[in-house]
Amino acid sequence: MLTTDKDRMNEKIQAFSKFGALEGGGITRLSLSEAALSARAEFKRRTEALGMSLESDDIGNLYATYPGTEDLPRIVMGSHMDSVRSGGNYDGIYGVLAGLEVAETIIKEGIKLRHPITVMVWTNEEGARFEPAMMSSGIVMKKWTKESMLAVTETGGAVTFGEALEASGWVGDESNRLNDKDYCAYFEPHIEQGPVLEEGGLEIGVVEGVVGMVNYDIILEGVSSHAGTTPQHYRKDALRAAAKIILDLWDKLGALDKELVFTTGEIVCKPNIHTVVPNYVKFSLDSRHKDPQVIKQVVEVIEQLPSEVCGCRLSYEEHWGRKTVKFDAGLLDCVEKAVNGLGYTSRRMYSGAGHDAQYVSELLPAVMIFIPSKDGLSHTVVEYSSPEETWRGANVLLNALVEADARL
Amino acid sequence: MLTTDKDRMNEKIQAFSKFGALEGGGITRLSLSEAALSARAEFKRRTEALGMSLESDDIGNLYATYPGTEDLPRIVMGSHMDSVRSGGNYDGIYGVLAGLEVAETIIKEGIKLRHPITVMVWTNEEGARFEPAMMSSGIVMKKWTKESMLAVTETGGAVTFGEALEASGWVGDESNRLNDKDYCAYFEPHIEQGPVLEEGGLEIGVVEGVVGMVNYDIILEGVSSHAGTTPQHYRKDALRAAAKIILDLWDKLGALDKELVFTTGEIVCKPNIHTVVPNYVKFSLDSRHKDPQVIKQVVEVIEQLPSEVCGCRLSYEEHWGRKTVKFDAGLLDCVEKAVNGLGYTSRRMYSGAGHDAQYVSELLPAVMIFIPSKDGLSHTVVEYSSPEETWRGANVLLNALVEADARL
Repeated sequence: MLTTDKDRMNEKIQAFSKFGALEGGGITRLSLSEAALSARAEFKRRTEALGMSLESDDIGNLYATYPGTEDLPRIVMGSHMDSVRSGGNYDGIYGVLAGLEVAETIIKEGIKLRHPITVMVWTNEEGARFEPAMMSSGIVMKKWTKESMLAVTETGGAVTFGEALEASGWVGDESNRLNDKDYCAYFEPHIEQGPVLEEGGLEIGVVEGVVGMVNYDIILEGVSSHAGTTPQHYRKDALRAAAKIILDLWDKLGALDKELVFTTGEIVCKPNIHTVVPNYVKFSLDSRHKDPQVIKQVVEVIEQLPSEVCGCRLSYEEHWGRKTVKFDAGLLDCVEKAVNGLGYTSRRMYSGAGHDAQYVSELLPAVMIFIPSKDGLSHTVVEYSSPEETWRGANVLLNALVEADARL
Repeated sequence: MLTTDKDRMNEKIQAFSKFGALEGGGITRLSLSEAALSARAEFKRRTEALGMSLESDDIGNLYATYPGTEDLPRIVMGSHMDSVRSGGNYDGIYGVLAGLEVAETIIKEGIKLRHPITVMVWTNEEGARFEPAMMSSGIVMKKWTKESMLAVTETGGAVTFGEALEASGWVGDESNRLNDKDYCAYFEPHIEQGPVLEEGGLEIGVVEGVVGMVNYDIILEGVSSHAGTTPQHYRKDALRAAAKIILDLWDKLGALDKELVFTTGEIVCKPNIHTVVPNYVKFSLDSRHKDPQVIKQVVEVIEQLPSEVCGCRLSYEEHWGRKTVKFDAGLLDCVEKAVNGLGYTSRRMYSGAGHDAQYVSELLPAVMIFIPSKDGLSHTVVEYSSPEETWRGANVLLNALVEADARL
């Protein structure tokens, strides 16, 4: 089996960790920020040094391409370089740098591939500066219009995405966008962002797809009254009612399927004064599972919630959801063959988080490769994957790519 | 028995409801605001028209006095005229206007009393503009220094209490402050602010004191992780832990004594993002009871909370509390005699809310008289007591005052 260079892979991680580095570790590298533009300049320098040709499309996505031996569509590897505020050195950037290391190995070792290979960078995957997340793959896949996205103003500031994009100097031609004529396969390596691989002592996650999800706001409406003068039996306390429903959801959803995840992450309480009984509480429910039947059961649990709890009226609002995305069986087979050939321990799994690959999968055969996340943590400065882990992921990518090149 | 004039009592309520009136009902009459100064001007106009002499002390408390037949200390009736934001037409102002109606009855009907009578207005009882509540009675009773209070900046603004006081034109002499040489008894009529009288079909509350209270913040610390990628069994969800403790408190404190009240009114959740498992939740606990033994049991419940809940660390911080305040037995007897003489239904009860009377009780014999609150509501624009109810309260005050005048 082919392998990439471990030290070189690690050097890439270390080098890009400088762009947006925070004192004490981690980075803040918001999309199209000065730090993100420095990372793009370094990506340009490195890809050009390898003899790759760099193009950008009209929303600043980057495509660095090296020719193949035949006139075939390109195989693309990529992810994003932006981070959340106080994020880590792996989420996103790892996928770009694993792609770059694979390209460097192929070019420097003279490995002949039939297809051209492209390393790509998506603009604004995190949505931390400009909402929503996966903005550019969403534009390419027509989830929303480019015009509406250009008008999005940065969170906590005044600059629009369109203005930041224009100022970046990276606006290219729309015809350069990822498409199904010039490209034939998409690989996205990523950190797991969860504890499953680490807990299982496994080296690689072969990602079959992205789990479907539903999102709700659950609302409890009671009556606000004075903390000192209202007897308990008279109260209609919306926070008490919300606490009861949160625990009921843990009981009921927890009984459905052990792979179901559900989260009540956000809560609003009114008037939120310590001497007043709350009359209004709204909390979020996010629930995800790969099997649409299990998601259907979640919906049933929500629909069967009582309309009154502890004297408070219960209602709910359904927000956006997503259907389960399944990655390409042929590319999954290439990844699994690479893993087995390299002798790595692995499991098939679904991604609980969203990734650009889920949109790309509507356009091209797509697949993801996960490496372990220390303590399952991401979106934090302590996010970590070891040099062995980042290297193994690049090795899987290299061999899967070679296999796909032979098959496609 | 003597009675006040029902129409005249109601006219006072209606007249003062103009100052700070909100469209659709209720008032916002923050302390020393333009609306509050208009109410003070009207109080001055009315007391001077009755031949009362008006003084203010160095923190703007007002004292309108009518002489008695003997050289004795004054009997004082009062409350406050400021409101919370979007408050009602009864909380505070009722006590001032019932005192004014009693004074008007005594003066116009030529009722001879041995003691001078004073109607007083406390500055900034609510603390809605300048924290804390009961600021001026607290200064008089040395709960805090005048200097520290003058420096308090208004909530959401830039003006200090000292600046607002100076600008009001109501700064008088410190020697005018309520004291135990010039005054011998304090009556404070007030709306109940709770549902007990209305639920019991009772007309008057004979207020024996103000319940003791304890205040805590309870803190749960877990680990924030990704909503999509973290299996349920791996989570340390601080909001789930908080929900469990809130319901446990309802179980444990609810079992102590049926008159115990407890409230978890305020909650803070971090990072409070719907796709992230909360790692930090803090919520408030306010608990009140007249019996210090029951309050002690509350403290024991808190001290026996587990140090770990659903994988989260539990800690707590004790904040301010207050001991149970007992009002003067002699004045209580005067109130009860008045109630019985008038044939009103009543019950002895404690106030769950704080009032200036609780501080005054350390200086002078003090007592409170409650009238019913519709639906138990206060601190809201729909706060309401009927003309019959406000009139009955004034009648009780009048007869209790006359009784005290004879006894003291």
